[in-house]
Amino acid sequence: MSDDARDEETVTVAHGGGTGRTRDFLEDSVVPRFGGDADGLAVGLDALDDGAVHEVGDRSVVVTTDSHVVSPLSFPGGDIGRLAVSGTVNDLAVMGATEPLSLTCSLVVEEGVSVGLLEDVLDSMQAACEAAGCAVTTGDTKVMGSGDVDGVVINTTGVGVLPQGAHVPDAGLSPGDKLVVSGPVGDHGITLLAEREGFDIEGDLTSDVAPVNDLVAAALDAGTVTAMTDPTRGGLSTALNEMARKADVGALVDETAVPVRDSVAATGELLGIDPFDVANEGTVVFGVDAATADAVVDALRATPLGAEAAVVGEAVTEHTGRVVLDTGFGRRYLSEPEGEQLPRIC
Amino acid sequence: MSDDARDEETVTVAHGGGTGRTRDFLEDSVVPRFGGDADGLAVGLDALDDGAVHEVGDRSVVVTTDSHVVSPLSFPGGDIGRLAVSGTVNDLAVMGATEPLSLTCSLVVEEGVSVGLLEDVLDSMQAACEAAGCAVTTGDTKVMGSGDVDGVVINTTGVGVLPQGAHVPDAGLSPGDKLVVSGPVGDHGITLLAEREGFDIEGDLTSDVAPVNDLVAAALDAGTVTAMTDPTRGGLSTALNEMARKADVGALVDETAVPVRDSVAATGELLGIDPFDVANEGTVVFGVDAATADAVVDALRATPLGAEAAVVGEAVTEHTGRVVLDTGFGRRYLSEPEGEQLPRIC
Repeated sequence: MSDDARDEETVTVAHGGGTGRTRDFLEDSVVPRFGGDADGLAVGLDALDDGAVHEVGDRSVVVTTDSHVVSPLSFPGGDIGRLAVSGTVNDLAVMGATEPLSLTCSLVVEEGVSVGLLEDVLDSMQAACEAAGCAVTTGDTKVMGSGDVDGVVINTTGVGVLPQGAHVPDAGLSPGDKLVVSGPVGDHGITLLAEREGFDIEGDLTSDVAPVNDLVAAALDAGTVTAMTDPTRGGLSTALNEMARKADVGALVDETAVPVRDSVAATGELLGIDPFDVANEGTVVFGVDAATADAVVDALRATPLGAEAAVVGEAVTEHTGRVVLDTGFGRRYLSEPEGEQLPRIC
Repeated sequence: MSDDARDEETVTVAHGGGTGRTRDFLEDSVVPRFGGDADGLAVGLDALDDGAVHEVGDRSVVVTTDSHVVSPLSFPGGDIGRLAVSGTVNDLAVMGATEPLSLTCSLVVEEGVSVGLLEDVLDSMQAACEAAGCAVTTGDTKVMGSGDVDGVVINTTGVGVLPQGAHVPDAGLSPGDKLVVSGPVGDHGITLLAEREGFDIEGDLTSDVAPVNDLVAAALDAGTVTAMTDPTRGGLSTALNEMARKADVGALVDETAVPVRDSVAATGELLGIDPFDVANEGTVVFGVDAATADAVVDALRATPLGAEAAVVGEAVTEHTGRVVLDTGFGRRYLSEPEGEQLPRIC
């Protein structure tokens, strides 16, 4: 891009949407600056995975970071505190690090926010830490002027340690692997949008936000997991497309096998938003060796968050880098959502 | 505090000032929630040190985090990008981890910021990473609406690995240890304030912002460093008071031995701000075993950033938890600054 064009272009919400525009920004502007080889770097920035993996002696150190800007701060099923802890615990978990070593908590708070609200958020972080069996071990607190920041922004960074080579990338699919989702999709995104629009007619929409490290541990114990990711920004559509693209395989998905709650489907229809396209915050997509797929699904179903786990498709040699959705009436490509329909969702 | 009082109290800039009000908030609201013992936790949240230290096998894993909200985004001597990398590299360094394993970069950007500005910040981060010999290995990008956040907020989190037990706490002073500063104090804070107020009459004020990991490595090689910290928010006054309080010693400081640039002293006088009370971003305070203090100062002076390193005082058994300043005319306690005179300084 010429300097003039560069100076005229401005940052849009799509830069932070987690889909195509975000990927372009990362590949054009971030990876070329920082994506070089470092000693012992097994998964670096250029992998655009859920975190980085560094080899240290006989161990792998996994690092992941997330800044949370959700609005509203509190929503059915959770709040920014639960989201911040779960989001980072989950990014560690889907790299294979199901027992976090360290969680950091960096708060940026707007001047004038009530201390009570802030303590409610901290209570919620504490409860999520207890659920995940992890501890915040260091942090930072900054205050910005009224109007400089909207409420509270929380960055959480997680560190986990594994035996060397035990991490699971999102890029590990091979043809024949089964695709497994751990539970219903779309709950977080549809709940947030309904909350903002006042559309929760039945009143039973709830975010799925929760730490999934125990669920992931159960899957890893039960079978051979070849790839994992959590379908947050951009939803299941984006997660499956990224897994297919990174592994140079196709993904054939049976739409009717993907669990979606009736209330989520109905509200999505009303709002014109596909539940496949929106963020989940307590759901995992696995690639699993076919021979152990049933065992993994059984193990997931025995966990509190995995009761509706299901095989939803498989990796295939055709349609490289694409996701093909079998709708029951025919087949179509499942595309990633463009831009960001729902800013500040996580 | 009663619930009513809690709901009425609001967050003020002093909560983020890094001095007494910040410490009260951390001790009252954060540490009780997260400060529990975790397996292998050698330095936890309750230490309120520059980072956490986790023992893993025969190694210590150091983790530190910082969110940077500086205004203006660019200032004489640096910008938010250089500050973000240096701040976290320096927090790792003063824990003893002078070779960062991983640096994360989490951007929260205001919609409408020019891509050119963002790329300038990323250029600056890249240059600081090269100076520090480290790499950004994972990150996150979020966009908030126009007016929700002021420009750019950057969180950087750092991870370092050391032989077990090789970390240096800020609490390690013993009576008799010499106090050493690595260079002139007050440059960053006075430069920022002068920039905001249009007071840089001579035009030669410059922030000291820089990665100090090589400087710290030189000190560690040259002698026995018992305690280290970087005097950021709250300045040298706060750093010395914290070191004395945490180690249950007094600190006796020769004011005339502390290097302060003439331009910084003069501008501080004009503005009514003591250079001892404001943030530094490329300066370190060491406690050093007396027998090796001269060797450490010599080693520091041989580094590009340490030319004005000096012994400025010593730890004593009297005045426990206090800092006594010998002004040349008499002695007085050096207090920490109250609240925050300069919000959004780092």
